[in-house]
Amino acid sequence: MKKKETAKLKILLREKVLPGDPKAVREILISNKYFFDFEIAVAEELIEERLARGPASGYHFFFAEIENRVVGYTCYGPIPCTQKSFDLYWIAVSEELRRQGFGRVLLSETEKAIRKLGGERVYIETSSRPDYEPTWRFYELSGYRLASRLDDFYAPGDAKLTWEKNLAASARA
Amino acid sequence: MKKKETAKLKILLREKVLPGDPKAVREILISNKYFFDFEIAVAEELIEERLARGPASGYHFFFAEIENRVVGYTCYGPIPCTQKSFDLYWIAVSEELRRQGFGRVLLSETEKAIRKLGGERVYIETSSRPDYEPTWRFYELSGYRLASRLDDFYAPGDAKLTWEKNLAASARA
Repeated sequence: MKKKETAKLKILLREKVLPGDPKAVREILISNKYFFDFEIAVAEELIEERLARGPASGYHFFFAEIENRVVGYTCYGPIPCTQKSFDLYWIAVSEELRRQGFGRVLLSETEKAIRKLGGERVYIETSSRPDYEPTWRFYELSGYRLASRLDDFYAPGDAKLTWEKNLAASARA
Repeated sequence: MKKKETAKLKILLREKVLPGDPKAVREILISNKYFFDFEIAVAEELIEERLARGPASGYHFFFAEIENRVVGYTCYGPIPCTQKSFDLYWIAVSEELRRQGFGRVLLSETEKAIRKLGGERVYIETSSRPDYEPTWRFYELSGYRLASRLDDFYAPGDAKLTWEKNLAASARA
């Protein structure tokens, strides 16, 4: 009955950023095993910048907590010099809690928040490394389409894939 | 004989960033007439950030001077989390001095500097607005190819075009 119990775990979402979040996010990203150290450092920096500069940083967050432990998060924000485009900089869920719908809840709440902020288009950039295949499937199931591919962008053989969702069109559909 | 005299104008390039550069660049971008105010503000911010933080800002520059007046510039830097990819954030020449090869000199020196810094790929993002057509031609003539198009990225009807050049391939060719 383990699975059922897990499914009943109560998830709490918060937008407020707390001083313990950089460390909590580091642990989540390490658990996923496919992020490079320099990528994890950037993820932490964005949270630190938000803690230092507040909303003026341009970085917004959702943190998912289960029993007072941060188990997932999203980091997003308006893309400078665009009218209604937002970037989902990060989305991650602790490895042992993946495939239980927490990512879907996080993404869906993030999209609602983006709509409230006037956003209509969401962009997500990912690597073309095979490690990311479950992530691409997750985006496709969530209504994103592959909009661009830049070969060798991250490194030789490692392309940048950009996924796109038109929230206005989804709302009408 | 005016044209010939203009062609003989001596251009000096410098990489050092000076306190007067944000204002000089603002005037160049205003003269071009197709940048929005918020874009010009971002261009100035990148120079201010370099002045404040030095090379750690990640922003590098070339300024073109004629008779002690800044008449053009490029702003570029390594793209975080990539091995050998660089972004050309800005390239601009004063309106009255365009079409005389100064942009070509600036771009060529910038590419050489990127090679020295270990860069192999250069990306340039532009709007799809018709104002930019001469700019696209300039990139194409300079060896860039259109690598990606994101429709409605900047605003409805205003796509983001990403141009790409492989400096390693160009050097071999």
